[in-house]
Amino acid sequence: MAGSSIGTIFRITTWGESHGKAIGVVIDGCPAGLPLSEADIQPYLDRRKPGQSKYSTPRKENDEIEILSGIFEGKTTGTPISMLLYNTSQQSKDYSDIASYYRPGHADYTFDSKYGFRDYRGGGRSSGRETAARVAAGAVAIKLLEQLGISITTYTRSIGNICIDKNKFDINEINNNMLYMPDAEAAINAGKLIEEISKDKDSIGGCVECIIQGVPAGIGDPVFEKLDANLSKALMSIGAVKAIEIGDGINVTKNKGSENNDAFCINDNGAISKKTNHAGGILGGISDGSDIIVRASFKATPSIFKEQSTVNRNGEEIEIAIKGRHDPIVVPRAVVVVESMAAITIVDSLLLNMSAVLDNVKKFYN
Amino acid sequence: MAGSSIGTIFRITTWGESHGKAIGVVIDGCPAGLPLSEADIQPYLDRRKPGQSKYSTPRKENDEIEILSGIFEGKTTGTPISMLLYNTSQQSKDYSDIASYYRPGHADYTFDSKYGFRDYRGGGRSSGRETAARVAAGAVAIKLLEQLGISITTYTRSIGNICIDKNKFDINEINNNMLYMPDAEAAINAGKLIEEISKDKDSIGGCVECIIQGVPAGIGDPVFEKLDANLSKALMSIGAVKAIEIGDGINVTKNKGSENNDAFCINDNGAISKKTNHAGGILGGISDGSDIIVRASFKATPSIFKEQSTVNRNGEEIEIAIKGRHDPIVVPRAVVVVESMAAITIVDSLLLNMSAVLDNVKKFYN
Amino acid sequence: MAGSSIGTIFRITTWGESHGKAIGVVIDGCPAGLPLSEADIQPYLDRRKPGQSKYSTPRKENDEIEILSGIFEGKTTGTPISMLLYNTSQQSKDYSDIASYYRPGHADYTFDSKYGFRDYRGGGRSSGRETAARVAAGAVAIKLLEQLGISITTYTRSIGNICIDKNKFDINEINNNMLYMPDAEAAINAGKLIEEISKDKDSIGGCVECIIQGVPAGIGDPVFEKLDANLSKALMSIGAVKAIEIGDGINVTKNKGSENNDAFCINDNGAISKKTNHAGGILGGISDGSDIIVRASFKATPSIFKEQSTVNRNGEEIEIAIKGRHDPIVVPRAVVVVESMAAITIVDSLLLNMSAVLDNVKKFYN
Amino acid sequence: MAGSSIGTIFRITTWGESHGKAIGVVIDGCPAGLPLSEADIQPYLDRRKPGQSKYSTPRKENDEIEILSGIFEGKTTGTPISMLLYNTSQQSKDYSDIASYYRPGHADYTFDSKYGFRDYRGGGRSSGRETAARVAAGAVAIKLLEQLGISITTYTRSIGNICIDKNKFDINEINNNMLYMPDAEAAINAGKLIEEISKDKDSIGGCVECIIQGVPAGIGDPVFEKLDANLSKALMSIGAVKAIEIGDGINVTKNKGSENNDAFCINDNGAISKKTNHAGGILGGISDGSDIIVRASFKATPSIFKEQSTVNRNGEEIEIAIKGRHDPIVVPRAVVVVESMAAITIVDSLLLNMSAVLDNVKKFYN
Repeated sequence: MAGSSIGTIFRITTWGESHGKAIGVVIDGCPAGLPLSEADIQPYLDRRKPGQSKYSTPRKENDEIEILSGIFEGKTTGTPISMLLYNTSQQSKDYSDIASYYRPGHADYTFDSKYGFRDYRGGGRSSGRETAARVAAGAVAIKLLEQLGISITTYTRSIGNICIDKNKFDINEINNNMLYMPDAEAAINAGKLIEEISKDKDSIGGCVECIIQGVPAGIGDPVFEKLDANLSKALMSIGAVKAIEIGDGINVTKNKGSENNDAFCINDNGAISKKTNHAGGILGGISDGSDIIVRASFKATPSIFKEQSTVNRNGEEIEIAIKGRHDPIVVPRAVVVVESMAAITIVDSLLLNMSAVLDNVKKFYN
Repeated sequence: MAGSSIGTIFRITTWGESHGKAIGVVIDGCPAGLPLSEADIQPYLDRRKPGQSKYSTPRKENDEIEILSGIFEGKTTGTPISMLLYNTSQQSKDYSDIASYYRPGHADYTFDSKYGFRDYRGGGRSSGRETAARVAAGAVAIKLLEQLGISITTYTRSIGNICIDKNKFDINEINNNMLYMPDAEAAINAGKLIEEISKDKDSIGGCVECIIQGVPAGIGDPVFEKLDANLSKALMSIGAVKAIEIGDGINVTKNKGSENNDAFCINDNGAISKKTNHAGGILGGISDGSDIIVRASFKATPSIFKEQSTVNRNGEEIEIAIKGRHDPIVVPRAVVVVESMAAITIVDSLLLNMSAVLDNVKKFYN
Repeated sequence: MAGSSIGTIFRITTWGESHGKAIGVVIDGCPAGLPLSEADIQPYLDRRKPGQSKYSTPRKENDEIEILSGIFEGKTTGTPISMLLYNTSQQSKDYSDIASYYRPGHADYTFDSKYGFRDYRGGGRSSGRETAARVAAGAVAIKLLEQLGISITTYTRSIGNICIDKNKFDINEINNNMLYMPDAEAAINAGKLIEEISKDKDSIGGCVECIIQGVPAGIGDPVFEKLDANLSKALMSIGAVKAIEIGDGINVTKNKGSENNDAFCINDNGAISKKTNHAGGILGGISDGSDIIVRASFKATPSIFKEQSTVNRNGEEIEIAIKGRHDPIVVPRAVVVVESMAAITIVDSLLLNMSAVLDNVKKFYN
Repeated sequence: MAGSSIGTIFRITTWGESHGKAIGVVIDGCPAGLPLSEADIQPYLDRRKPGQSKYSTPRKENDEIEILSGIFEGKTTGTPISMLLYNTSQQSKDYSDIASYYRPGHADYTFDSKYGFRDYRGGGRSSGRETAARVAAGAVAIKLLEQLGISITTYTRSIGNICIDKNKFDINEINNNMLYMPDAEAAINAGKLIEEISKDKDSIGGCVECIIQGVPAGIGDPVFEKLDANLSKALMSIGAVKAIEIGDGINVTKNKGSENNDAFCINDNGAISKKTNHAGGILGGISDGSDIIVRASFKATPSIFKEQSTVNRNGEEIEIAIKGRHDPIVVPRAVVVVESMAAITIVDSLLLNMSAVLDNVKKFYN
C-alpha cells in the first residue's frame, strides 16, 4: 500500500533505501511565502549525522541536501518541495553477508514475509537512514512553526538507567554534549555507561523528550484525529520506538484524579491557564495552551557485535556476530528525528484547524 | 476538519453526542459475505455498559444496537453498515451547571477554545459514550478476524499500584470479575482499592493490555503506516489514554540489545519463530508472527466529587465539586474499547496487505 | 474498499439501500456556528422527491429528514452531523422478480461480479434513492456557501433533442415547471416529448447545467486536486451520468485558441475580469473569479417497460419487460443532486484553500 | 493543501516546475516483484517528447529518466519508486517577459490569486512539462496491467473538425503518423489543418480516446469511488481538458433507454457478455467486462502568436503577442498522458478490489 506519506494538508512522502542511489522527501501543502534554502535545512541534518562523536558510527555521511522544486526567488511557492540526499558513503560489501540470514531485532524477516524478498543492503527501506528524509522535512516544519511563535525543545531524557535530574535541567546544555542531554552530569555518566556497553559488544536504549511551546489552545480534533493520537503515530513510526507518553504518561495509571487533574486558573496576563501540566498540554485530543510534552522510548540498537542465535533463509538455526559499523545507542541521533516528526504533526494540525469555525471562514473570504 | 473516521479500506466513522438523540457508526469497506446481526454486536456493548458493577455508574444505558444498512439475508453486502444507539437515559438536568465552568481534566476548555462554544451536556462529543460506537464497529472487526483464525484477549493489567501477577495469569478469570482482571487475587485487591478511593471522593487510573494471536508475519508497512504506529494512534484516540506501549514498552529504555533482541529459531512445526517476544510481535512496523502485545495507560476519571479549583467562562477562579454519576475508574469499561480499536486496526492492515506482492495480484486475477 | 465518502475537510459519508430500513449521511468537518435545522434541508429533498409530477414515479416517499447529531442550540458544533431518512414506502414485492436476472443498463450484473451477490431489492445501494442522502448533505453545503456570498443555479438544459434557448433563459422559470427548465417553451416541448416516450414504454436522457456564482479567484489546486477534476469526480459519481463538461466543454475540440481564450480585462469596479467565459470559471484547475459552469449528461432511465433481451443468473438468455414504477426520465429529479454535489465540492475546496499562503496562516494565529 | 498525489493503494506524487532543476514522481504502493528498469519507461516519455514532428515545438528535451529507489536486482521491492528528469533545456530568458502580465487561457492569474505570486518561468507547476512525471508513473502502471492481461489503446480521435472514420479504424496506423490517429486519411487532413492554423498564428483543439481491454467485471465501487468517477478526475486533472465522456458520452442525452441499454447475452465462450457497449464498460460505477471507453476533450493551446488583449499585474489593459516555442496543438503529445492517467486509475482500482469479498480474504490468508 501507499505507506510512505504522513499528514493531510502538510503532507510528506519519503523514499529511498540506505544503499540505493539516493533518499529523499517530497513536502506537499507547505504554505506559499516561507523563506527557504538548503542552508535552513542542513543544520538539522548535521544533528542527525553519524560520526559526530565516539558514541556514533565513524561512518561519514557528507549529506548535502539538495532542493529540486517548490522554491522561487528564495520562497516556497505552495507547490511540492522535493529534496534529496545522494547516498555517497555506502559500502555494500559490508552488508553482503546479511543477505542470507535474519538479524534479531531487525526487519529482515518481516520484510521477507511481506514482500517475498528484500533489499538486504544495510536495512534497505527500514534503515535508520530513511529518517534523514524526515529530518529534512522537519526542518521546514520547524521553520514554519517559528513564524507562528512556536518553538520545540527536544533532548535525551535517559540512557539506560541514567536519567536527567529535573532540578539540574539546563536547556543551554543540550547542545553542549554529544548526547543532547540537558544535564551535564547525567551526560557524563551516560557517556561512561555507553563506553562500558560498547566494550561489552552490546548496545543500550533510552528516552527522548520533546516540549512544544506556544501552540495556542484549540488545536487538534476530538475523536480519531486527536493531537496526541497523531503525535503517537508520528513518533511510533520512527524505527526502534516502543512506547509513547503524553504528559505524565505511564505514571497516570497509579495516580488519583485529584493528583492528575490540572486546576485551571487565571495567570498574570489575565488569561486562562493551568496550575500544573500533568496532561502534557492536551485535553480531549485538543491543545490547552500549555506546553505539549511527549516522550518516546527507544530500544537498544539491535545490531550488536555479541554473538546471537538466529535462522537463515534456508531455515537453519545459526550463530552470528554482526560486523560493520553500528552505534551502540540510537538515542542521540534520534533526538532531531523526534523533533521533526513532532513539528510535522503540529504544523498539519494548525493548518487543518483554520476552517473549524464558520466566523473565521467568513472573515477569511470577506 | 473531518476527524471522525479511521482506517483506509476498513473505515469507520462515528457520530453523536452523549446527550443528543443518538450515537452511531458507519463501517465502510467491510468485505461482503460476513454473517452478521445485532446479536453479534450486543455482547460487546454489554461489556462496556455502565451499571454492571458497584465500580461503575448506576446509570442505566439499555443500549440496543440497531443495524440500518449493509446486511442482506444475514450477510454483509460490502456496502456501508450503519448502526445506531438511541440515547435514552440521559438526564440533561444533571449536567446543566457545568455549562458555565471548565472541569479540570476534561475537554470543556479546549472545546470552547476550538469551536467557540460546546454542547456542554455530559461531555458532548468528548464523552466516553462515543466509544460505544467504536465498540459496535469493533464487534464487526473481531468477528471478521475470527474468520481468519485471529483472536484477541484484552484485560485490565493494573489498577493504581495493583498489578496482575504474570504467574497467576488465568485467561478464564477475565470475565469472572467485574474488573476484567486475569488474576482473581489482584481483582479482589483492586476492588478494595477502588472502594477506598471512592469513599475519598476520588478516582484512580490503570492499564489495559491487549494480546492479538494468529496474525501472520508480514502485516503492516515499513515507514509511516507501521502496524505499531497505527495501533498507537487508534489506542491513543481513546479518551483518558496517556501512554501506549508495544511489547516491552517503556522498559526498553533500560535494556541492552542482547537482552532486548529476540533470537529467531525453528519451532516444532519447522516454522520460523522467536525464542522470546520482547518486540511484542512487530519488527520494523511489520508483524513477525508472534503475539502482538500492546498496552494503554488510562488516567483516573477526571470527574471527582472532591473539591477542585477551576475557572468559569467569565474568567473567574472558583471552587467546584462535581455532582452526578461518575465511575471512580474508567479502566474496566475501557477494556472492550481497547479491544475494538485494536481489532479495527488489524483488520484494515490485513486487507491493505493483500496487494503487496505482484504474484498474489496475478493469482487473484487469473 | 471504503468508497462511500467524498471530500477532505468537509467530508460526507452516505449509507443505506433503497429497501433497507433507512438511508442516511454523516457530514464531518462542517465548521461550527452554522444555523441549521431540519427545515433548512427539507426543501431540497422535496425538489428530489418522486411523485411531484406526471413525469416522475407516482411512488410516494414522504421523506422527513431527521438530524441526529452535530447541532446544539440551533447551530452546528463542528462535530459530525448525522442525518437519516427512513424507507417507509418501499414495496419489496414489486422487485422480487428482478432477483434472478440482470436488468440491462443497471448495476445488477456488475454488483454480482464484484460481491458475489447483491441486495436485489430496488437497486439496493445503486438505487437512485442513495442520492437523497447526498441532497441532505448538499443542503448544508449550499447554506454554508450562502454565508460566503456564493450561490448556485442548476437546471435542466436539455431533454432528448429539446434544448433550452439561451436567448429565452429565465432564471425565475426554473421552478415554474415540473422539468426545472429556465425556458417555458422548451419545458412545454420537452413535456410533450416525455409523454410520447412514455407511451412508447421507453425513456429519454438529458443534460443538467450548474452555474456557481461568487467563488473568489484562487480556489482549487494546480495538479491532481484541480477544482474541475473534483467537480468531475463528484458529478460523474451520480448514477446515469456519462459525460462532464466545464465551460465550453466538448466544443473546445473544434475551436481555435483565439476563439477559446478569454481575454482578461478591467471591469467597472476596477477589478481583473474576463471578457468571455469559455473556460467556465476555471484556469489551470483554479477558479478565476468568473461563474463556474459545469454540465452533466444523463442517460435515459435504464428501467423501461419495453421488452428487452438479457440473461439470468443461470446463464440463460431471456426476454424481459420491467414492471413497477419508473420515471421515464431521471433528469428533473437529478437537478438538485447535481447542485448538491457541486456545492459539496466547492465548500471543501474553499476550506482547503485557507492555508495556501503563509501570511494568511500568520494572520490567523496572531 | 497536498494536491500533488492521486490514488489510494497505488499512489503517485509528482513534483517540479518546468524551469526548476528537475521534475519527478514518487510511486508508492507498487506491488513487489515487477521487473522494471529505465528502459521500460523511456519509450513512454519519448511518445510525449517535444520536437518529434513539425506539429510540436522544436524545443529539445533529451529527457532521460532516472530511477532512484524502489528497485532491487531488477524488480520492484514494494517500497516507493522515485524517478526524476532533470530540466536541461529550459531557456529562462524566453519567458522573462511573461512575469508581468496574465496570458489568456493560462493559469498565471489564478496562480497569483491563490498564492500571491508565482514561478512565472514557463508555466511553473502548471506547465505541460509536469505531465512527463505522470507518464513515467503511467509506464509502470501499464507494465503492471500487462502482467494481468490488460491492454490500453489510446489515440487522437479528432483534431478540430477532422474526426477519424470508425470504418477506417486501423490500430496499426496509430504509431505510423505524427498525430497518433488510427486513420491514415484523417491524419493527413488533420496535418493540413494544423499547418493552416499555424500559419495563421493560431492553435486548435481535439479529442483523445482511450480503450482499456481485459479489465474483469467487478472493478470499481458503487458510490463515490465509481470507476468512471475516478477516471474522470484523473483525466480532467490533465491541463487543457474540458470534458470527459464514458462510452456514448454526451450523446446519451439524446438517446432513448431502448437505444442506450446494452442487452446482456451469452457469448461463444459461454460467458455473460453484452451485445453492444454504449455504457463504455462501466455500469453503476463498476466494470462490466466489456472494453472501457473514455474520451477527453482538449482545448487549443492557449499560447498563440496572434495578438490578444489582457491585463498586467499593475491592472492595466494591454495587447500582447506571445513569443517563444509553442505547439499549435497539444493533443498528439497528450495521447500518452491520457493513457498514463487511465492506467494509474485502473491499477489502483484493481488493487483496492482484492478485499471486496470475505471468501477471497479467507482464501488469501489460509
